[in-house]
Amino acid sequence: MNSQQIHLVSRPAGVPSQANFKLVEVALPDLKDGEVLVKNTWMSVDPYMRTRMIDRKSYIPPFELNAVMDGGAIGEVVESRNPRFPVGAKISHISGWRTAFISDGQDFTLLPDVPLPDQYFLGVMGMTGLTAWVGLIKVAHLKPTDTVFVSAASGAVGSVACQIAKLCGCRVIGSVGSDEKAELVKSMGVDAVINYNKVDDLTQALQAAAPEGIDVYFENVGGDHLQAALNVMNDYGRIPVCGMIADYNADTPQPGPTNLLFITMKKLTLQGFIVMDYFDQFEEFASQMAPWIAEGKVKSEETVYEGIDHAVDAFLGLFDGKNRGKMLVKL
Amino acid sequence: MNSQQIHLVSRPAGVPSQANFKLVEVALPDLKDGEVLVKNTWMSVDPYMRTRMIDRKSYIPPFELNAVMDGGAIGEVVESRNPRFPVGAKISHISGWRTAFISDGQDFTLLPDVPLPDQYFLGVMGMTGLTAWVGLIKVAHLKPTDTVFVSAASGAVGSVACQIAKLCGCRVIGSVGSDEKAELVKSMGVDAVINYNKVDDLTQALQAAAPEGIDVYFENVGGDHLQAALNVMNDYGRIPVCGMIADYNADTPQPGPTNLLFITMKKLTLQGFIVMDYFDQFEEFASQMAPWIAEGKVKSEETVYEGIDHAVDAFLGLFDGKNRGKMLVKL
Repeated sequence: MNSQQIHLVSRPAGVPSQANFKLVEVALPDLKDGEVLVKNTWMSVDPYMRTRMIDRKSYIPPFELNAVMDGGAIGEVVESRNPRFPVGAKISHISGWRTAFISDGQDFTLLPDVPLPDQYFLGVMGMTGLTAWVGLIKVAHLKPTDTVFVSAASGAVGSVACQIAKLCGCRVIGSVGSDEKAELVKSMGVDAVINYNKVDDLTQALQAAAPEGIDVYFENVGGDHLQAALNVMNDYGRIPVCGMIADYNADTPQPGPTNLLFITMKKLTLQGFIVMDYFDQFEEFASQMAPWIAEGKVKSEETVYEGIDHAVDAFLGLFDGKNRGKMLVKL
Repeated sequence: MNSQQIHLVSRPAGVPSQANFKLVEVALPDLKDGEVLVKNTWMSVDPYMRTRMIDRKSYIPPFELNAVMDGGAIGEVVESRNPRFPVGAKISHISGWRTAFISDGQDFTLLPDVPLPDQYFLGVMGMTGLTAWVGLIKVAHLKPTDTVFVSAASGAVGSVACQIAKLCGCRVIGSVGSDEKAELVKSMGVDAVINYNKVDDLTQALQAAAPEGIDVYFENVGGDHLQAALNVMNDYGRIPVCGMIADYNADTPQPGPTNLLFITMKKLTLQGFIVMDYFDQFEEFASQMAPWIAEGKVKSEETVYEGIDHAVDAFLGLFDGKNRGKMLVKL
């Protein structure tokens, strides 16, 4: 069997382009004892992957050049010499960016037998949902009385964060980059939505949307969003720092907010977090999220590209506002 | 009796100057029942006072124009119609920037009967020492294995922070603005000192001083110091944000570091704090600090200006690198 794989062939400067990637077809060898052959059915593309394209020490190794990338994916065992994973078993794993692969299954997680679409385990019931939940519940220690501001509110993590915060009883404000996305976020029951491309002054817009001030800012964007949030934060506000997508593709490093002094003046806490540090809390997360999904209280928003030959398009689309909710590639 | 007082007569734009202040003499009325007349002996000038010269909502009200300012001071009761504070009683209070005043004593703290110079209760045994202790112990949860970077290491708070961190068993790096200050900080037993005015690249200097990386950055400065610290922080590093003196006098707001993305990548926590939130922990602080001082393990560094007519000089000197340790005015 052959596997089609996406290789990183050059490190992007600024916004990545198709030229940084190459679709490569490789032949897979025969299975050895203990191995399985997996055909991937879904793969995830995520903004954090851009940070792995830089050659530097980080919490996760950089992608190697001229080698297949990796990332979250769902697959099905099609050939097995490992009794733990019989043919037909559906698994969640991190060997994305390829159509098929051979593995001993050490890092596999079997999908639970629940009536949810498989791809939910890459999104709302997977790393994406866990990220939103960890940021709000474990990092920001969300209280029902909090007013919460979520940037990139129509994104994969942002859309789940908005819904969790509403379910916790909070007042929620989201920011998005288009009217269409604003509609999507409103449909989730969010109290106020700002289209940052249509306001002159993000601080004023945020003040108008949250006259009572912001207690928790779920940070996905950085730059002017962080500046505005710092201006409008209440004393003792918490800022779980999930990411700063505005900085990922900057050709030259972008200056930070001019108002960091508010960290002291308002006694704020900014805390960066990486979801993999919280994998041991997946059970607690799942026990809260699964009923919410079953009862229709949390909806999975998805944007789906089809085929490995469109995986790079899907990834590039993340930085171009192409996704509503979770960006997925169906293989 | 007359009182000489310093009034704020205009709000500074950028670096304050003498023209923003005026020395005013007022006559004090006779005492009423329950009141005392206090002659101040020492007053404190602190960088945070600059932030109170801006007319904005904050954790503490702005100074009013054409009225006496306030701040930490030590005084002695010279006339009393209040049995709690007899003539001769020495008190710590917040009615500084004046030579004498009348009060009902509601916010007075009697100096304890210990063999320490009175002015220590404005410095190492007072708000300054408490600030350093809170930042390290209560905010950063200092561990003996931590490598600690203290900016403004020869300043009032910085010099105490360096000494506390050394006493806790940490490796300590300080930054200062002159060779003379570097000598002072070295004399405290600090492991490495950087004169930031003599290095081309603060990040490189910090990396050389802390090849093992920084676990705790005691933030007093902001700007390029925060940028360098973020570059050199270890994963899960903690940054107690005491202040950002580099920003206090900025004519126009200065851009923040270009590398805030490290907050996520390194899973850092930045936490702003204000010492007055921790006044209820003064006893715990004092029980640790008093023996350190008595045993000579913590030394009080002081710069003293004499006379109320030099109080503004002392204050302006804070932004001009004039102080070694705590800046005080002897009245």
